[in-house]
Amino acid sequence: IETKLPKVGTTIFSVMSQLALEHKAVNLGQGFPDFEPPQALREAVTRAMAEGRNQYAPGIGLAPLREQIALKTERMYGRRISADTEITVTSGATEALFAAIAAVVRSGDEVIVFDPAYDSYEPAIELQGARAVHIPLTVPQFAIDWQRVREAVTPKTRMILINSPHNPSGAVLSANDLDELAAIVRDTQIIVLSDEVYEHIVFDGAQHESVLRHAELAERSIVVSSFGKTYHCTGWKLGYAVAPKALSAEFRKVHQYLTFCTFHPAQQAFAEFMASSPEHYLELPAFYQAKRDRFRALLKPSRLKLIDVPGGYFQLVDYSAIRDEPDTAFCEWLVKQGGVATIPLTPFCEQAPNTRLLRLCFAKSDATMDAAAERLCKL
Amino acid sequence: IETKLPKVGTTIFSVMSQLALEHKAVNLGQGFPDFEPPQALREAVTRAMAEGRNQYAPGIGLAPLREQIALKTERMYGRRISADTEITVTSGATEALFAAIAAVVRSGDEVIVFDPAYDSYEPAIELQGARAVHIPLTVPQFAIDWQRVREAVTPKTRMILINSPHNPSGAVLSANDLDELAAIVRDTQIIVLSDEVYEHIVFDGAQHESVLRHAELAERSIVVSSFGKTYHCTGWKLGYAVAPKALSAEFRKVHQYLTFCTFHPAQQAFAEFMASSPEHYLELPAFYQAKRDRFRALLKPSRLKLIDVPGGYFQLVDYSAIRDEPDTAFCEWLVKQGGVATIPLTPFCEQAPNTRLLRLCFAKSDATMDAAAERLCKL
Ligand SMILES: CSCCC(=O)C(=O)O
Ligand SMILES: CSCCC(=O)C(=O)O
Repeated sequence: IETKLPKVGTTIFSVMSQLALEHKAVNLGQGFPDFEPPQALREAVTRAMAEGRNQYAPGIGLAPLREQIALKTERMYGRRISADTEITVTSGATEALFAAIAAVVRSGDEVIVFDPAYDSYEPAIELQGARAVHIPLTVPQFAIDWQRVREAVTPKTRMILINSPHNPSGAVLSANDLDELAAIVRDTQIIVLSDEVYEHIVFDGAQHESVLRHAELAERSIVVSSFGKTYHCTGWKLGYAVAPKALSAEFRKVHQYLTFCTFHPAQQAFAEFMASSPEHYLELPAFYQAKRDRFRALLKPSRLKLIDVPGGYFQLVDYSAIRDEPDTAFCEWLVKQGGVATIPLTPFCEQAPNTRLLRLCFAKSDATMDAAAERLCKL
Repeated sequence: IETKLPKVGTTIFSVMSQLALEHKAVNLGQGFPDFEPPQALREAVTRAMAEGRNQYAPGIGLAPLREQIALKTERMYGRRISADTEITVTSGATEALFAAIAAVVRSGDEVIVFDPAYDSYEPAIELQGARAVHIPLTVPQFAIDWQRVREAVTPKTRMILINSPHNPSGAVLSANDLDELAAIVRDTQIIVLSDEVYEHIVFDGAQHESVLRHAELAERSIVVSSFGKTYHCTGWKLGYAVAPKALSAEFRKVHQYLTFCTFHPAQQAFAEFMASSPEHYLELPAFYQAKRDRFRALLKPSRLKLIDVPGGYFQLVDYSAIRDEPDTAFCEWLVKQGGVATIPLTPFCEQAPNTRLLRLCFAKSDATMDAAAERLCKL
């Protein structure tokens, strides 16, 4: 069988988690917390199973969960959205991203992505017979050069895919960035797909500039978020997409045949937990900022140079003082010999970057951070 | 936004479940049991959450779960398959079907489907830029006319999609059918996609003729199954695909970007439950046969004619003695006025069938069956 995805192997996240296991490395690679979701949330799942929520949920998501998402969106971003027509619950943000691309992008279209770009974007685009147009972010700020975007737009441009807080860099878009984007897509057929899975994790008092805050952009955008990142349960695979009614209708047509619905008991549990603990996500910035600061302090004695981290739960480190080799080679050496699993940037770029950066996840307990730092400081 | 799926509305399953709620109808429409999964299985989910299985599972599925699937496959079908390279756990059979089609079918290809065909097949095919070639099953046996298949095959045929036990009819393929299929695909590039989600539900002492029993076909097939149908938990959205190594590799490339992985605690729970209760699925034929027979007995006094049900958990009924109108119209009347939600066949056919059949789900408690039968006998 000839492959439809010649450029694709096993995703780097699986590869690195597997290598971490094999080499007993501290796993700061694949992005997931090594601590637990709230106990009340787990108990609510158990209760939902006992109450008989074990058959299909509505395909678009449980109504009370969609209502909680609508409430939260209004509280966070001042935007009222319809739980009925503008929110769809998905099997994680990954499904939401795929469904959005499959619903909108056609054969022959172009989609602008910014490198480093999360590794699921391009295969999803290619499976539509479309082409990803890669624009590198500036280094080391990982900012968007809007002039390059203007130059890259063609009549074939169907979608611009943004991601803030950005994975892997942690860079965040500003209100001004959104205005720039709005000016570019105005009077075009371009849909914005906004990956905001780290929306609640922004630091140093900054506010997350969601596309949903931007009235003009919100009218032509699909915004994707994740319960896994926000509630420390990446393995529960629950996410959602927000889009205006007509766009949601197209999204739902695809979603219903991709997965139909997602694990029903967890939907009920989140509906209850979000209603009873609406403050949970408000604690995330301080929670993760403390982790970020602790991790950076631990790495201070090392020869790694720390890039600023405005958001998300990843620390980029420059290892050029230690070795001058491409990131994939150093990353492989580090997991096998150095005892720490990380993520290189090359798999997220069309052209291997000439940076010497690795991504380290700091959504970890103190003990994990300590163990990793001890090894990293020896390098 | 112009739609990519002009023929698609909201799936009939969502439409009918919604109407059932609104009109307080007994819901025999969307296929799901109204009884619970085994308590030990639910307890195992709770335990898995408590043990910290709340972050990503391996994308291809938890190793011990894949091992249980391999063991079961060998026990059931006498075929040894590799847990490492030939099994992928998915977010329900729906995701497995989509991933299989997305991995194999290309723009311009043709895929042969048999009408009535489950409603997710064709949109998944169309999203690849390919075309579904519909061959009607014979009525009332719902058998495949292999001569028509031979005539429908062209150099563009990339896949033949079979489904046994068949939804909605319950018809099952015989060993001879598989031989016919094998002869057709021999020396071609055609991949077989075999939807076997009701594999454990066959009646009257018959054996399910899985493609996995057929050495030659198994070499070029993707076989899809469902934990939801087998363990009475359709809302947990766990399924899997079995395919030879090279085909699984392509399947996995797509799966990792569709959903990456599925609800981790349930994977651990199934691994434990399948190991400790390997007899569970062996009880399903008798369990559902009793339901089938009870339901048919209840409907005997009605004016509905009962079609034979060799497998699955649906009863087709011919309502022509009651009304002579198309199935969608009668189905709508029945949910709104008659108090029973059912599923018409038209949404599963390229051309509206000239049958007068509705599908009724008998995966129901005695009370539900009684309530439905009381209403149906009044017609
Ligand atoms: C779906 S596995 C990857 C998890 C993740 O978002 C990341 O590590 O960037
Ligand atoms: C995914 S909802 C449909 C459930 C089902 O398999 C059926 O009713 O046929």
